[in-house]
Amino acid sequence: MPFVVTSIDRAPTDIVNGFAEIGVATVHEAQGRTGLMAAHMRPVWKGARVAGSAVTVSLPPGDNWMIHVAVEQCRDGDIMVVAPTSPCEDGYFGDLLGGSCMARGIRALVIEAGVRDTADLAAMKFPVWSKAICSQGTVKETLGDVNLTVVCGGAIVNPGDVIVADDDGVVVVPRANAATVLKASRDREAKEAKTRARLNAGELGLDIYGMRDRLKEKGLTYVERLPGK
Amino acid sequence: MPFVVTSIDRAPTDIVNGFAEIGVATVHEAQGRTGLMAAHMRPVWKGARVAGSAVTVSLPPGDNWMIHVAVEQCRDGDIMVVAPTSPCEDGYFGDLLGGSCMARGIRALVIEAGVRDTADLAAMKFPVWSKAICSQGTVKETLGDVNLTVVCGGAIVNPGDVIVADDDGVVVVPRANAATVLKASRDREAKEAKTRARLNAGELGLDIYGMRDRLKEKGLTYVERLPGK
Amino acid sequence: MPFVVTSIDRAPTDIVNGFAEIGVATVHEAQGRTGLMAAHMRPVWKGARVAGSAVTVSLPPGDNWMIHVAVEQCRDGDIMVVAPTSPCEDGYFGDLLGGSCMARGIRALVIEAGVRDTADLAAMKFPVWSKAICSQGTVKETLGDVNLTVVCGGAIVNPGDVIVADDDGVVVVPRANAATVLKASRDREAKEAKTRARLNAGELGLDIYGMRDRLKEKGLTYVERLPGK
Amino acid sequence: MPFVVTSIDRAPTDIVNGFAEIGVATVHEAQGRTGLMAAHMRPVWKGARVAGSAVTVSLPPGDNWMIHVAVEQCRDGDIMVVAPTSPCEDGYFGDLLGGSCMARGIRALVIEAGVRDTADLAAMKFPVWSKAICSQGTVKETLGDVNLTVVCGGAIVNPGDVIVADDDGVVVVPRANAATVLKASRDREAKEAKTRARLNAGELGLDIYGMRDRLKEKGLTYVERLPGK
Amino acid sequence: MPFVVTSIDRAPTDIVNGFAEIGVATVHEAQGRTGLMAAHMRPVWKGARVAGSAVTVSLPPGDNWMIHVAVEQCRDGDIMVVAPTSPCEDGYFGDLLGGSCMARGIRALVIEAGVRDTADLAAMKFPVWSKAICSQGTVKETLGDVNLTVVCGGAIVNPGDVIVADDDGVVVVPRANAATVLKASRDREAKEAKTRARLNAGELGLDIYGMRDRLKEKGLTYVERLPGK
Amino acid sequence: MPFVVTSIDRAPTDIVNGFAEIGVATVHEAQGRTGLMAAHMRPVWKGARVAGSAVTVSLPPGDNWMIHVAVEQCRDGDIMVVAPTSPCEDGYFGDLLGGSCMARGIRALVIEAGVRDTADLAAMKFPVWSKAICSQGTVKETLGDVNLTVVCGGAIVNPGDVIVADDDGVVVVPRANAATVLKASRDREAKEAKTRARLNAGELGLDIYGMRDRLKEKGLTYVERLPGK
Repeated sequence: MPFVVTSIDRAPTDIVNGFAEIGVATVHEAQGRTGLMAAHMRPVWKGARVAGSAVTVSLPPGDNWMIHVAVEQCRDGDIMVVAPTSPCEDGYFGDLLGGSCMARGIRALVIEAGVRDTADLAAMKFPVWSKAICSQGTVKETLGDVNLTVVCGGAIVNPGDVIVADDDGVVVVPRANAATVLKASRDREAKEAKTRARLNAGELGLDIYGMRDRLKEKGLTYVERLPGK
Repeated sequence: MPFVVTSIDRAPTDIVNGFAEIGVATVHEAQGRTGLMAAHMRPVWKGARVAGSAVTVSLPPGDNWMIHVAVEQCRDGDIMVVAPTSPCEDGYFGDLLGGSCMARGIRALVIEAGVRDTADLAAMKFPVWSKAICSQGTVKETLGDVNLTVVCGGAIVNPGDVIVADDDGVVVVPRANAATVLKASRDREAKEAKTRARLNAGELGLDIYGMRDRLKEKGLTYVERLPGK
Repeated sequence: MPFVVTSIDRAPTDIVNGFAEIGVATVHEAQGRTGLMAAHMRPVWKGARVAGSAVTVSLPPGDNWMIHVAVEQCRDGDIMVVAPTSPCEDGYFGDLLGGSCMARGIRALVIEAGVRDTADLAAMKFPVWSKAICSQGTVKETLGDVNLTVVCGGAIVNPGDVIVADDDGVVVVPRANAATVLKASRDREAKEAKTRARLNAGELGLDIYGMRDRLKEKGLTYVERLPGK
Repeated sequence: MPFVVTSIDRAPTDIVNGFAEIGVATVHEAQGRTGLMAAHMRPVWKGARVAGSAVTVSLPPGDNWMIHVAVEQCRDGDIMVVAPTSPCEDGYFGDLLGGSCMARGIRALVIEAGVRDTADLAAMKFPVWSKAICSQGTVKETLGDVNLTVVCGGAIVNPGDVIVADDDGVVVVPRANAATVLKASRDREAKEAKTRARLNAGELGLDIYGMRDRLKEKGLTYVERLPGK
Repeated sequence: MPFVVTSIDRAPTDIVNGFAEIGVATVHEAQGRTGLMAAHMRPVWKGARVAGSAVTVSLPPGDNWMIHVAVEQCRDGDIMVVAPTSPCEDGYFGDLLGGSCMARGIRALVIEAGVRDTADLAAMKFPVWSKAICSQGTVKETLGDVNLTVVCGGAIVNPGDVIVADDDGVVVVPRANAATVLKASRDREAKEAKTRARLNAGELGLDIYGMRDRLKEKGLTYVERLPGK
Repeated sequence: MPFVVTSIDRAPTDIVNGFAEIGVATVHEAQGRTGLMAAHMRPVWKGARVAGSAVTVSLPPGDNWMIHVAVEQCRDGDIMVVAPTSPCEDGYFGDLLGGSCMARGIRALVIEAGVRDTADLAAMKFPVWSKAICSQGTVKETLGDVNLTVVCGGAIVNPGDVIVADDDGVVVVPRANAATVLKASRDREAKEAKTRARLNAGELGLDIYGMRDRLKEKGLTYVERLPGK
């Protein structure tokens, strides 16, 4: 039975917004290397970096009806996360829906399927991460669900989770962990800044991270030339 | 027996050119969602939008001889559509052939295989849609056909059909339908312009398209919280 | 038993640098159509064109420890070539390692796996060719080898081989052949320049390459219309 | 922080066993078309049909250490469900582990990665569904989790869920729904038996399902020949 | 506008049946290496070899309604050829439809999508060639066409064309060419029988086909050891 | 310049034959987890287990001429290893060549491309490992090399190397290491036999391999229930 859940909990706005300054790779590390969507989830245009609260959509292959339903459930600061019930590359979303989303304050679309009107979406600066670019049209015949748990790009997304996306891909931060993960992300960034400065100055990771003893212990052998060559 | 058909019918120039102003997604919709090439047919560089008359080429894997034959059969305003007889990623086409095509007024290449010298092709502004980018060279040993029906990217292309391509991909308009489809495309654009204005102003698709009754009738259920959660 | 070979032979610097002015497709042709990596090895950002001496790394899936080891083995003008022992898309390399490489004079990374922090890598102008873009982190637990023969993107790479890469992909020139292949590449470029001028002026490849007789001999048949149509 | 959860709830044995008589397609339908793993999860040998309680394993690419840990957590009637944290085809599991599983009463392995010794596994009649067959060895260096929620083949699996698998693939039934879904599956089978008899006797689905009116209403047009042909 | 064409021309029964004795590879060669479906079209069970007249179905992703419509249009000796309008792996067809097809004398299903109940289909000996095996259910909401031209597995199929399929895959013979191609296939088989006998007796293809002179002329060089090794 | 090297060194016959009794996974382990071909190299029919000396063939996409040349270079006990110069699925090899190979004592074909007449090859019991099954014909126009180093399925193969193949895939043993690897394989088998007996008797790998301390040290935590659940 298809449901639209109209009331979802979101992380506090300042927490959500804080993630927009942090790269996907850092957030992924900061929460213990979890929540990353698969590498086939790619930005339609490069350079966007966003964070927002997930409104989730589950819908059939080749049918985008529920996206229209979901737009109404979104509010300022949300990111729509769309997962078909079976693999599909059709163009579920184009410039008209992009305009509708922007009018509603929706920050981005994450969809494990295709989108179209991509030149327009880029010109409008509406960020989209998708599995494919494809003009194939969809129908409006079969219902799905809004704001139930979905699997998108291999990651579990619950409504209200924080979605962070940049040129590297998309990561999901469970709502309940958002504040903790944001702090851990910032700590990691601060720590990395120091390491970065040392690496850029020519120090080796081998020394900074103190790896030499453990490499030797594991049996790494340095030779000038390979034996017998 | 390999044939080159030297005389093909094309759609009127103004009809063909009219398509260059319209996006692939719109044309695809306007002709009843037919004729779209598969999503793996991607532009080598972004931002081109072209329309032209198809000169079709069928050739073996790893052999680009027939492209040289086909250049002679093209005239100003044509788009070369190349389909290998089995899957191949080799680089059939580079900057030399690109220059030859441009000298002949050929507007673009659509090839279900690989191309190379892509930085040069982008600098020359010669538009190419292909399945792959690959430097692997080809031979000139085995014949194929020019201007017979081909399947390219899963779409049937007859010589003289109108090819429309942009960042979204490639669509084929049968020559006999070109005028009708162009008109339908323009009508669709006009209609979409109005819808776009309303969506951009914040009206919902649910209301503009009058979807609420049918959603209810199909059984869509709005709940504040999921039962049992 | 894991080895790091510390002393490798490189081609003379002027030979290596000479390749940076020549496209991958030309080099590939000039050495008899060998040494090309597969088409899935794509640049993370477009527009780079580099040549350098290979320092090779073989490592396990999901473990980037040996990259840290390999940085130390690189010197100015090298390109790191990384091949996992089984298919993997994880993000082995990001902006920190990029900075470390640049500090060491490493010219590029070629990796048959994933990389992350790609917006930073592009901003830093550190060129990377990879199979995937993915934030998934890696561990530092299992050893591999540095400067042994590897297969990367289907091509054999020996340490000290010349790596040439541009928007078309990556080609490997065996060290011993570097001078010969560079000369052959330049000869080919000179010859192509003349052909290019003729093609751009509208001459046909059919005439420039003298193909008409052989096409006829092979049985190519020109007809105005297909028989029976 | 890596956890092994030692106490999980399972569905009643008779319920679990009941599923072994029912095909995956039927179970999938009976629970509202949810819980199906992706089509790339294929049986290593054909003809097995099993049901069991999930013991879930999350582990790194190329590292099968946690499978050894998980064997101990399984008991008679369980199915081990293994999901790497990033895509991997390595051979995590072979005949030795197969024997260990059988000694423990484990009914099958479902793994979104590779397995090896497949001729032995077939001879032993230990059923395996996997993404790949590959001999590539794995290490034992990095921890993962046992009996936490995983995503395997795109489906969410909680420990104790019922796993049903046959030549068609794998479906997951949430533990709490097992009894209901089993009943619905049996009802569906009974109903299908009647329909099957009618179809086998030559009645048309169009008539049995009463589709003709709705097809007409939707606009389906029967013509002897296509207009204009 | 969706059409069902009710009257199609088929090749004579004895011609169609003649193809069932001939392998797909032979038929493909005998008609000039055309009409072959792509390698991803695989038999669900091995050992079937069939020929029949195509009844073609074009339908949406995830919607099998038109298969029910098409069954009625088939008659004894037909093969149903089903092509979704965009890539889809869903299970459009199972044992119920298989029984319905067999009751109607339909000889096989060829579908560029998924099927389910595959153990049953094998037990029933109903031959199926498909792109995937998947239990995912489909809906019955959107119309398509029966007996219009389709592209299936990259091959053009017109209603009434002869479909030949075996463990190697599927080939399409245009109806008008059926008699000619059958004769050419038989001639080829007769000729191959002689060559086979000679090859099995140890004669070399180099001698039987008289290749040695042309190999030498092309520049093939026999050396005992590679120069410089 | 295309070469056929007519004199290659092979491992002693008894060494080569010894490998036929050992599984691919064991050999791969015994030689330090090297030499394995990629998982897409699959047996055309199941149940074969072979070992032989490699005769290597490099040839163009869609052109099987060099296979005919290579047959002559093979002798009793050889396995032909065929690698196209770019990715290709065409059917390079069928029952005629299979018969020719068998007449010559060739034990198997390993080809990173397609084969056809697969029902015949299975009936003849000629073992083949390939990337695809496809009837698409090939030409005989362009030369390649016999008995030069090739990369096949991602593995380096030198002529005379030992090829071992079974249902798990294909592994390459460098000729010079053959005796050592055979011994190591047998030692491993003997050792595994003991472990197998213990595992089959119900002992846990955790205990047999003494893993418990290291797991604890790495931080693995056993909990009855997840904290907070």
